[in-house]
Amino acid sequence: MSLLNTPATTGIDLSAFSAKLDDARAASLELGATTTQKKNEALVEIAATLRANVAEIVEANERDIDAGRANGLSDALLDRLALNPARIESLAVAVLEIVGLADPIGDNVRGSTLPNGVQIAQVRVPFGVVGAIYEARPNVTVDIAALALKSGNAAVLRGGSAAQNSNQILVSLIQRAIAAHGIPEAAVQSIDEFGREGARALMQARGQVDVLIPRGSASLINTVVTESKVPVIETGAGVVHIVLDETAPVQWSVDIVHNAKTQRPSVCNTVETVLVLAGAADRVLPAVGAKLAESGVTIHADERARVLLPDAVPATEEDWETEYLSLDIAVRVVDTLDEAIEHIRRYSTKHTESIITNDLGNAEYFLNRVDSATVMVNASTRFSDGGEFGFGAEVGISTQKLHARGPMGLQELTSTKWIVRGNGQLRP
Amino acid sequence: MSLLNTPATTGIDLSAFSAKLDDARAASLELGATTTQKKNEALVEIAATLRANVAEIVEANERDIDAGRANGLSDALLDRLALNPARIESLAVAVLEIVGLADPIGDNVRGSTLPNGVQIAQVRVPFGVVGAIYEARPNVTVDIAALALKSGNAAVLRGGSAAQNSNQILVSLIQRAIAAHGIPEAAVQSIDEFGREGARALMQARGQVDVLIPRGSASLINTVVTESKVPVIETGAGVVHIVLDETAPVQWSVDIVHNAKTQRPSVCNTVETVLVLAGAADRVLPAVGAKLAESGVTIHADERARVLLPDAVPATEEDWETEYLSLDIAVRVVDTLDEAIEHIRRYSTKHTESIITNDLGNAEYFLNRVDSATVMVNASTRFSDGGEFGFGAEVGISTQKLHARGPMGLQELTSTKWIVRGNGQLRP
Repeated sequence: MSLLNTPATTGIDLSAFSAKLDDARAASLELGATTTQKKNEALVEIAATLRANVAEIVEANERDIDAGRANGLSDALLDRLALNPARIESLAVAVLEIVGLADPIGDNVRGSTLPNGVQIAQVRVPFGVVGAIYEARPNVTVDIAALALKSGNAAVLRGGSAAQNSNQILVSLIQRAIAAHGIPEAAVQSIDEFGREGARALMQARGQVDVLIPRGSASLINTVVTESKVPVIETGAGVVHIVLDETAPVQWSVDIVHNAKTQRPSVCNTVETVLVLAGAADRVLPAVGAKLAESGVTIHADERARVLLPDAVPATEEDWETEYLSLDIAVRVVDTLDEAIEHIRRYSTKHTESIITNDLGNAEYFLNRVDSATVMVNASTRFSDGGEFGFGAEVGISTQKLHARGPMGLQELTSTKWIVRGNGQLRP
Repeated sequence: MSLLNTPATTGIDLSAFSAKLDDARAASLELGATTTQKKNEALVEIAATLRANVAEIVEANERDIDAGRANGLSDALLDRLALNPARIESLAVAVLEIVGLADPIGDNVRGSTLPNGVQIAQVRVPFGVVGAIYEARPNVTVDIAALALKSGNAAVLRGGSAAQNSNQILVSLIQRAIAAHGIPEAAVQSIDEFGREGARALMQARGQVDVLIPRGSASLINTVVTESKVPVIETGAGVVHIVLDETAPVQWSVDIVHNAKTQRPSVCNTVETVLVLAGAADRVLPAVGAKLAESGVTIHADERARVLLPDAVPATEEDWETEYLSLDIAVRVVDTLDEAIEHIRRYSTKHTESIITNDLGNAEYFLNRVDSATVMVNASTRFSDGGEFGFGAEVGISTQKLHARGPMGLQELTSTKWIVRGNGQLRP
């Protein structure tokens, strides 16, 4: 479904596009020198402006919804696209929450005085210009703009044609709010007018854009990851595993698997596959299955697990690779912890995995050997989340290893620079 | 000159290539669980093995030199390619220096206990598999292998056909040394046998390779940066600036510019352009020019600077963009500090810039407004260096903002993961 994959139909005015990025760069330099207090005042103004213009936003959004319906968008996409007064209020509240978060800019990361008296300090600075590519999710426009503003970054947004009227009004309201506090309007810009070619140009704009964040479907993320020449932070899918070892307490196994699957099945930190050690299967699997059945979960089990889970459907190779995001779960019996870890190595998206165990050696072995962004012992995978970790707003969960890994907060939207202060020192 | 840009002539055995990367992954998991002590013992063994096999290395290297001469390699490239006993001893010493560096793996970066008692900790872990693409520099083979080993990473090396005999013997000696300490040989592998297509395949191996480091010419780095689907750490060129403001002390101006240009002209942190405020030009420029002339530096000056530097040659637009890496320097008179900063914004590669000043306001303005990896006040740009910063071995200097910025040490070869420990907690 990726809008980026359809062939280009028209060229774009590259000089107008490039001028926007230059304006973003200039605005980012202003923003980088703006105090936390002033950034917070602008964020409060954004929230107030959203609240004061609910009718205008809903009206623009309805035009997108009508067009989407005419274009045959699915109900799920139409729902994601829709803004009503309650959702707009949530957006305003989310912006105000960002006001309350600590500003990472200017933090001293490390430093020292060299033997010759030169002082060096690594300080946290904004990236500069942050690009975002997403689809049919106007809430992301407000999220990213507010997170970028707080972290001192200019935002260049490509929100997709399906949400263009919604995004247009949101960006213009945000621009009005920040301009009232002396922040350049170019600190938050949409490039939707350049269409798909604009998204492509954004991916080519290495040097003009410092980092690109794709949000949305796996195919959109994959397109950006593979085509972008701008460095990307990948926020990926979650084929999440829970391992139950021979010592796994039955109650924890039952409750944690149930919580990790059913508390909110549609999100990336939901468990998708349970791996049970053969020595634990008889003891824990029937109870785990019964509790899942209570919540209407369909179990896709391998042959050995089906002996203990008579209502399960047979699992195929595809089940091990699937991020269901639904009330489905795959279950497999393995002979050893190494076999469980090998399964994870093969099928995991390296997002989050948890082991339920009472064996200290197994716990440490699992934590050290599983190469995922978040590895857990005896806790629900649903805790792998920026909000739960105390980071506040939602930037996403990185499944790559460069720069940011796991739940991302404002700090992950920053870079650093080295400040060196001397008094005439020369290198001998 | 990039070897990567020439057209492919043959296909490669992709399954053999992929098997090598799988072996690297398996080795990286072993290495990630290896103690610092054991890694250090293996490094000591590498140094001893290099010292014990000098004749064998020199012999292999001479075959590369002969082939290079037959293929018309320049003297500069042949010099870079050459390994003699003294250079091999330097390589062994560099490996032993890495033994002395702190091991970043396992460091606790941050952590907390959540209100529900779940403990979270962000700990430093290896990337896993680090790829390197470089040309005709066999010393990089040893450097990267040793740095990767110390930071717990498997290394996959593409060293280029010009150095293939040298790299082959070095990799096999390293493999012998680590195997003697129980570390899998696949922790350090060359993919030179796959030729240029191997380099291309390495750039496509997202998921199998966690980070790719290009080292060498600007064209090689540019090819990797633009073509790689694997995340890249760019170690770029340095068009480095020094600004002399109205309050710049004459002696510091003279000495720092001279040191930054002449102490080692061929490296990336050498100054290339001096920007003098008009209000300082009469006072400082003649003395700066005289000192540079003593060392045989050719000054490329704009019209206003040439009034004060009669021996200078006229600067053209090209001079502002040039990383000379030679005894040449560009000089320009600007009217304001903002104009100097604007020049830097336009022409800098964002590596390192320094201001010479006695004005506190100007110093802070410069530090805040100049968007480069290292910004300095009253110090030689030659201090922008991992060794000077106390990081020990040379990984390179990152000119990108994602993950690492400025001089890189072992820490920049690592990622993190979140370790979460609970006792049955569920998400409400």
